[in-house]
Amino acid sequence: MENLNQYIDHTLLKPTATEAEIIRLCKEAQEYRFFSVCVNSCHVALAKEEVAGSDVKLCSVVGFPLGAMSTQAKMMEANKALVDGADEIDMVMNIGWLKSKNFEAVANDIRAVKQVVGKKVLKVILETCYLEKDELVSACRIALQSGADFVKTSTGFGTGGATEADVTLMLKSVNGKAKVKASGGIKDRREAVKYITLGAARIGTSSGVAIVTNNYTDEHTY
Amino acid sequence: MENLNQYIDHTLLKPTATEAEIIRLCKEAQEYRFFSVCVNSCHVALAKEEVAGSDVKLCSVVGFPLGAMSTQAKMMEANKALVDGADEIDMVMNIGWLKSKNFEAVANDIRAVKQVVGKKVLKVILETCYLEKDELVSACRIALQSGADFVKTSTGFGTGGATEADVTLMLKSVNGKAKVKASGGIKDRREAVKYITLGAARIGTSSGVAIVTNNYTDEHTY
Repeated sequence: MENLNQYIDHTLLKPTATEAEIIRLCKEAQEYRFFSVCVNSCHVALAKEEVAGSDVKLCSVVGFPLGAMSTQAKMMEANKALVDGADEIDMVMNIGWLKSKNFEAVANDIRAVKQVVGKKVLKVILETCYLEKDELVSACRIALQSGADFVKTSTGFGTGGATEADVTLMLKSVNGKAKVKASGGIKDRREAVKYITLGAARIGTSSGVAIVTNNYTDEHTY
Repeated sequence: MENLNQYIDHTLLKPTATEAEIIRLCKEAQEYRFFSVCVNSCHVALAKEEVAGSDVKLCSVVGFPLGAMSTQAKMMEANKALVDGADEIDMVMNIGWLKSKNFEAVANDIRAVKQVVGKKVLKVILETCYLEKDELVSACRIALQSGADFVKTSTGFGTGGATEADVTLMLKSVNGKAKVKASGGIKDRREAVKYITLGAARIGTSSGVAIVTNNYTDEHTY
């Protein structure tokens, strides 16, 4: 796979990430021509300075990683990230409301953020490790109906990451009307290629350099 | 210790928590007369309905659990939680900025939230498991100078929770000018009493019922 790098959101989301590490992430993304860098919202302005003038896009997470902040806070987080230069927003769905079968609240939460995001790209992280099959199907349906451009498997902070079964079910559920991002625990080239071959349009990983240079890393991957 | 229950913030922060579980948390808090319930910001309005008319206070977390969202998003999350009825705000400090020695940004982040919180109680979660001793001392100093009413050890989502050494160092660092909340991994009465005896003014735990009824639980405790 020649253009594997262009599938990768080069990701650094750990709470201890320093400004120097964010700068290194941005340099790596330019060096390896990754699709984007993905950072927490406090680092968007800094990352924007670093990737400005390059082709590297900038993703900010929102409501991350629990998805349990108020809708108003998610809207403000998305808005500030866009003002600071984000091209894409990766928000976490409200998992508790989904499990409460309060589907209207789940939908309103996504819709409100999509209103802020406008024509830019909104990915909705479903945190598949916590969802039953029927919940995953509902989550895909709600995300799609609420304006998601992508559904995304995982934050990397839950009890599990992307699985072949979940990505397959997500692809089937959104049926070409949204894209799928596989993320969480994807550490090597073989895994990345597997999800792209299945149909994933994007890979979220903190092991991007190892993936494109084919070096395995044993570090925790978000 | 007779009034142990009045030290406890009865806590449910897992992302999968349902509305029914939040309601149960609030009922337990009233039954056992805990000081407060502590929930994610999406649940504040519901929890307020449940504890209204009782003595149980309501805490919302903010910027939880990574502390890495933009200051503007933390301000909005605090503001909306207060509008929805929160009495206290437990915000997570920006750990990455602390580790970058960008102390001014760490201070501004806390100060901005304290401005929103006003005379209500602001606790600043330091996430001690990620901090070196000197970082913990700096974190206490910055929190104190920025208007924190409490410093709090842990989110429960990091690699560790409260320790005797950290709580002791925090008490020494704030030197009576702020209170200390011990949280993360406190599962039984013996542990809770230990921290209170050391000088902690509040205990954050999801094992409040087990603690006051003296039943041990092996579940993960936030």
